Amino acid sequence: MSSLDPVLSHIDATLPQALDRLMDLLRIPSISTDPAYKADCDRAADWLVEDLASIGLSASKRPTPGHPMVVAHGQGAGPHVLFYGHYDVQPVDPLNLWDREPFDPALEDGPNGKVIRGRGTADDKGQLMTFVEACRAWVAVHGALTARVSVFLEGEEESGSPSLIPYMKENAEELRADLALICDTGMYDPQTPAITTMLRGLLGEEITIHGPTKDLHSGMFGGAAMNPIRVLSRVLAGLHDDNGRITLPGFYDGVPDLSDELRAQWDALNFDAGAFLGSVGLQYPAGEADRTALEMIWARPTCEINGIWGGYTGAGFKTVLPAEAHAKVSFRLVGTQDPHAIRAAFRDYVSAALPDDCTVEFKGHGASPASQMTISHPAFEAARQALSDEWPNPAAFVGSGGSIPIAGYFKTYLDMDAMLIGFGRDDDQIHSPNEKYDLESFHKGIRSWARILDAISKADA
Amino acid sequence: MSSLDPVLSHIDATLPQALDRLMDLLRIPSISTDPAYKADCDRAADWLVEDLASIGLSASKRPTPGHPMVVAHGQGAGPHVLFYGHYDVQPVDPLNLWDREPFDPALEDGPNGKVIRGRGTADDKGQLMTFVEACRAWVAVHGALTARVSVFLEGEEESGSPSLIPYMKENAEELRADLALICDTGMYDPQTPAITTMLRGLLGEEITIHGPTKDLHSGMFGGAAMNPIRVLSRVLAGLHDDNGRITLPGFYDGVPDLSDELRAQWDALNFDAGAFLGSVGLQYPAGEADRTALEMIWARPTCEINGIWGGYTGAGFKTVLPAEAHAKVSFRLVGTQDPHAIRAAFRDYVSAALPDDCTVEFKGHGASPASQMTISHPAFEAARQALSDEWPNPAAFVGSGGSIPIAGYFKTYLDMDAMLIGFGRDDDQIHSPNEKYDLESFHKGIRSWARILDAISKADA
Repeated sequence: MSSLDPVLSHIDATLPQALDRLMDLLRIPSISTDPAYKADCDRAADWLVEDLASIGLSASKRPTPGHPMVVAHGQGAGPHVLFYGHYDVQPVDPLNLWDREPFDPALEDGPNGKVIRGRGTADDKGQLMTFVEACRAWVAVHGALTARVSVFLEGEEESGSPSLIPYMKENAEELRADLALICDTGMYDPQTPAITTMLRGLLGEEITIHGPTKDLHSGMFGGAAMNPIRVLSRVLAGLHDDNGRITLPGFYDGVPDLSDELRAQWDALNFDAGAFLGSVGLQYPAGEADRTALEMIWARPTCEINGIWGGYTGAGFKTVLPAEAHAKVSFRLVGTQDPHAIRAAFRDYVSAALPDDCTVEFKGHGASPASQMTISHPAFEAARQALSDEWPNPAAFVGSGGSIPIAGYFKTYLDMDAMLIGFGRDDDQIHSPNEKYDLESFHKGIRSWARILDAISKADA
Repeated sequence: MSSLDPVLSHIDATLPQALDRLMDLLRIPSISTDPAYKADCDRAADWLVEDLASIGLSASKRPTPGHPMVVAHGQGAGPHVLFYGHYDVQPVDPLNLWDREPFDPALEDGPNGKVIRGRGTADDKGQLMTFVEACRAWVAVHGALTARVSVFLEGEEESGSPSLIPYMKENAEELRADLALICDTGMYDPQTPAITTMLRGLLGEEITIHGPTKDLHSGMFGGAAMNPIRVLSRVLAGLHDDNGRITLPGFYDGVPDLSDELRAQWDALNFDAGAFLGSVGLQYPAGEADRTALEMIWARPTCEINGIWGGYTGAGFKTVLPAEAHAKVSFRLVGTQDPHAIRAAFRDYVSAALPDDCTVEFKGHGASPASQMTISHPAFEAARQALSDEWPNPAAFVGSGGSIPIAGYFKTYLDMDAMLIGFGRDDDQIHSPNEKYDLESFHKGIRSWARILDAISKADA
């Protein structure tokens, strides 16, 4: 009998206790963005320190200018992994859209089985506890972990992680491991686990185009005075060509083509673009004409206008010619696209497109490069096999359209690759009312990590 | 001695009493758009009936589904003129920006002489009383008017004139005259009176472009789902070409070229485009490349985006891909441009420009053609001479960028030309806090109408 089997059995037998522990943690309203919950964030960190200590890790709370970090180290032999998660949660408003108190979690019956309902269940307390419970089971059954495990939890993920990079820089020596494990992602579908190996980066820009010094009456000035909304429309319309390609010079520098291997894997997923777009009332992929919808969201860069406003936007009509017009524009980045070079190209483009009578103001909203993991590391194949053993379908190496900056930070500041594995589902409603985490995700998530720890410990690094 | 001179002297001698009467009328808060002031609108109509009766006109209040009309007829010989004005006023908020109670009017010292301060002073009570006081002076001095005068005052001009067209249609016989006089415009500059002979029309359109059925996360769907703001930008950017011309097919049908005579007159005005645009921080005329700034605002049609909105417009950043995007677009029309044909061309253009995954909803906000007066009517030249006799500079036939729909209605429903003469100034702050009317406008305005009535009575119709 393998050393893994009794661990899995122990997990199955002690699931009610694991669930009780999660409920305890979920009851702490650790909303990081709201100063009113500062003490609660601190309490969540204390709870985690105590829980990690209870399974034999030397755990402590580390102060930062914001909410504390929790850092814990185990003594196990084998490859050294650093598990990252976050104990803070999103605000809960609008509260009236919740069907229960967000911090009074409970098991409920869902259309696809039991779910744990409450704020933070999927993002990220439920997910991070899958890893902690897997460690607990190894320790309970074998008296020790099968790999050398460190844990690194932050309390500011939902409020922009202001302390994260400084903390990583100052504590690089302590935090560096062979591999980072990040549990803040989802399954490909309920039957198919996923290891996210490509994460798009994100560059945000806000522009304000100024024309006249004040709002004008379009009867008096219309036709003679330059209208900033007209200028803004023209500037934004020029960002894509007729084939959906982004026109900024140098934009595609560093955008890799998909490897044949990954293309074959993705083809095997049989992604249903029609169903994906159909779920939101659309039919035609809107990106580059020569790419599949799956490539568009996982492997291609984008430019989206996330907001636009100017002039009179109320009921009825007002013939105003406004003094200024605004837009928020973001770029999702892939491969080695350089966010700073693209920010410069965008600003150059906008400035050059302005008529002489207009000026522009720029405001940056973050600039993170994409993360592309080196999946040749043997842990990736080991983890893929472990996940495939647990779930109905084999695990897939997938991309993620969204951005999880922490993965890039591990690479940049600690020179570590990160393996992103999570058990979230598309309908978890993270950041929204009625957030939930499937009980199956929690249970099989714990079992998955138990398997992965076993597999990694046996893989050649 | 002419019959005019004693009238002018009487006006000078009785100015204080005329001012007292205006103050009385100004104290009535006849805000037509707010039902709370319905009784006050009625009271203003009663005040005017009584005042017009006091100078020998048979005046009465005429009910409508909204606020009443005031109609009065005199017995004078000579050409028949119908004077139009409105007794209702704009709301006063924001009240805290007023330096005095809006309905407690007073004479104040302004930088360029005395001004009458209060809501409705310039728009339109002060202006309409210039005409009434001129009539009073004629009657006081000569016992009769020098022309056959009818008066037609409405109480809904500031709330969209819902009763006006039905009332005009039902009472066409009674209201028809040789010429309409409208006192709701301004001077060309403080030394130069103006007769407005070209009024641009106005067509308003609101579009909503729908893409996905709900707001999407740009990480999850960005690149694959069509973004309605991107579509909207492209649609709006296509409305003008690189030379500032509007691209809708057939848009310039019915746009006349300026006559040599009018061009010469306008050249003589020495319009300072640099100062005009400089006053609002601009430098370069933004319309058609081959037109002067004065043509752009008086004689050329325009397309302006008056409002635009979509997606996330708050502080910070949200990577949303919105379900819809909106714009309010208006067209100023000239000559015989057909607003309904242009509405159709606009809607056709937008619909054809949409990608297959988007739909559009249109909402119309009014459609009035331009008004172009037949200035060959001898009254126009007579009035021009009369105004030139009163003011330092000769009067000009000017265009108006704005729209005064009543002028078009007189043409359409009563087959009358209208002569638009007013004594407002650019700094009157109509519709805004601290509205004022220069005492000189009031005094010389009365004198001007006395002269015009005299001149018209002598002109050959």
